[in-house]
Amino acid sequence: MAGAGTDDTPLRPLERVLETVLYVDDLDAAERFYGGILGLQRVSRRDGLFLFFRLRRQMLLLFLPEAAAENRALPPHGARGPGHVCFEIPEAELDGWRAHLERHGIAVEHLQNWPGGGRSLYFRDPAGNSVELAPASIWGLGEG
Amino acid sequence: MAGAGTDDTPLRPLERVLETVLYVDDLDAAERFYGGILGLQRVSRRDGLFLFFRLRRQMLLLFLPEAAAENRALPPHGARGPGHVCFEIPEAELDGWRAHLERHGIAVEHLQNWPGGGRSLYFRDPAGNSVELAPASIWGLGEG
Repeated sequence: MAGAGTDDTPLRPLERVLETVLYVDDLDAAERFYGGILGLQRVSRRDGLFLFFRLRRQMLLLFLPEAAAENRALPPHGARGPGHVCFEIPEAELDGWRAHLERHGIAVEHLQNWPGGGRSLYFRDPAGNSVELAPASIWGLGEG
Repeated sequence: MAGAGTDDTPLRPLERVLETVLYVDDLDAAERFYGGILGLQRVSRRDGLFLFFRLRRQMLLLFLPEAAAENRALPPHGARGPGHVCFEIPEAELDGWRAHLERHGIAVEHLQNWPGGGRSLYFRDPAGNSVELAPASIWGLGEG
């Protein structure tokens, strides 16, 4: 590990993002989109503050930015403007996802053919965040 | 799967966030912090636009928000204000990480003892984003 390895107490390299955060302006709309259309498992919601989803080994945390910035229980955060997230899908399911989104009235904004192979599907969540579905192969990462 | 399961073509549930994004204002400072101090593996950098790091099976993408918003090659995004990310660490390494950060002049902003067990360490990246290190157990997720 580049950084920690130079110290007396070697630390294991960071291997996983545990919490990915996006900011939204409407928790109801976000729940319909991420829970209903994308099918993520909701684990917690506090009206006026947050909505949390669980993936297999990670969390997606959605916050109202003004509330997260004023929350005194934990270090404040809160960004404005469109963020971006990409969820992994199997390469073979991209067309199925496109059809699924269109059936739910979600416009596909862009379909990217990557030079090294693989395709990404881009669309927007109700808050305007850029959401992407892509196979891990676009980064040279194996599936699984 | 709650959403996709209602369609004709069942899709596998989304299991993984492949790309987590933060916005920064200085790629050099971000590279020293995420690459040097946190020890992440840099895979790509385009001056004036982005800096990408690879974790085991995920990507951390850092963008200059104004450049990402003006980029015409892909759907625009770009948020301003402090975001948040949490990296998983083994529970037993939290004190080692605290010492490592302090040796590098990174102030620990908060140490959270969670009611269900487990602790989180909070600090800031050079752009002001809130960075957390925590074991997966704080979310009831197993390690590994």
